Amino acid sequence: MTDLAVLDVNETLFPLDPIAARMTQVGLDGRLELWFARVLRDGISAAAAGRFVTFRALATHHLDALLTAEAGSAEPLDLDGADPVEHVLAGFEEVQLHPDVGSGLQRLRDGGVTVVALTNGAASIASGALERAGVRELVTAVHDVGEAGRWKPAPAAYLWALDRHGVAAGRAAMIAAHPWDLQGAQAVGMVGAWLDRDDARYPPGFPPPDVQGRDLHEVAEALTEPS
Amino acid sequence: MTDLAVLDVNETLFPLDPIAARMTQVGLDGRLELWFARVLRDGISAAAAGRFVTFRALATHHLDALLTAEAGSAEPLDLDGADPVEHVLAGFEEVQLHPDVGSGLQRLRDGGVTVVALTNGAASIASGALERAGVRELVTAVHDVGEAGRWKPAPAAYLWALDRHGVAAGRAAMIAAHPWDLQGAQAVGMVGAWLDRDDARYPPGFPPPDVQGRDLHEVAEALTEPS
Repeated sequence: MTDLAVLDVNETLFPLDPIAARMTQVGLDGRLELWFARVLRDGISAAAAGRFVTFRALATHHLDALLTAEAGSAEPLDLDGADPVEHVLAGFEEVQLHPDVGSGLQRLRDGGVTVVALTNGAASIASGALERAGVRELVTAVHDVGEAGRWKPAPAAYLWALDRHGVAAGRAAMIAAHPWDLQGAQAVGMVGAWLDRDDARYPPGFPPPDVQGRDLHEVAEALTEPS
Repeated sequence: MTDLAVLDVNETLFPLDPIAARMTQVGLDGRLELWFARVLRDGISAAAAGRFVTFRALATHHLDALLTAEAGSAEPLDLDGADPVEHVLAGFEEVQLHPDVGSGLQRLRDGGVTVVALTNGAASIASGALERAGVRELVTAVHDVGEAGRWKPAPAAYLWALDRHGVAAGRAAMIAAHPWDLQGAQAVGMVGAWLDRDDARYPPGFPPPDVQGRDLHEVAEALTEPS
């Protein structure tokens, strides 16, 4: 039985399309995935070594590095003096929830599950996206890992959220699009629920997800149906 | 005083050019950095959660995923029935040391420093590259993190190497091109020596490197000069 669902945010609740579009505008077409993978690599590395660094600091650093590496290879938009890094990161204020998120959240709530969000990014971005879609009230709390002092998938991040909401790991599920996140949650005893919108293969060497679905509604049904 | 230098391998000792060339041949032009960042993200995530997975397993998985995602977007080489993933990974048998590595290793040895390699990849690949360049005998031991049971930058990887060679952290230096690796070594008390061939900026939120140089010879001089 699931009492608490902890939701990942970036790519799980919304695609990063507005960031990709703005990266194209500053001459970084097609570099979204590289940028995001590097930010995660470094933030998770800090966590593995017992450190913490903000998503925004690494996001800024790796945009700067890509802009330097790609300088001159494409014709960037005239930003009228605006900083290209700020221009790209402002895209986080425009992200839009995947269409299945609202009904998935409602299904979890109807099933008696408390829903919280836990992001390696900024809580304000997650809250903003939920508010714009009119479903913020379905989520009890929106946290970022700054409160835990450690990025996911370090155990401390999940344990902080469980402690904060007073739920035992075995009665809590982590819902994420990213296997690297689920394997961290599973390491502390949580249920790993994979939101596999792209029908992808699961990485070898990670424990398989306990539950999976093609959208949040499917995952919510799997987590709340009587077993 | 440095008694032991622990050398990173991928990109630190050799560029991944043969892998990039073979990726182009199978229709993955320009995807080397994305592939490598995702492999590291997942291997480091496993380490952060207390797990271990081989480099080769993740390398294979993320090549498969990219081949699926890019299917049809480029005309791949006719491999005459060979598996495209095997074709790409065979490039690791062709990697060539950066030209400064030989004189850098000699400088460390002349300075009385024991040199070992520690890679998140396979020790056999590192040994092969050193042998082809005729400098294998300058390196006392070539290890991969399979021996430690944890990828860098988890503390256990560095502590294993220190214990294996009986050197205290404060008398050992980690030499790497990657800041995420150095910040892990620094977390256990090692000297972090940054091999900054590209004159890059250092990520925010990581402690600055203790030593840096544009090639291995410069780094070796900095580590062996009387302070």
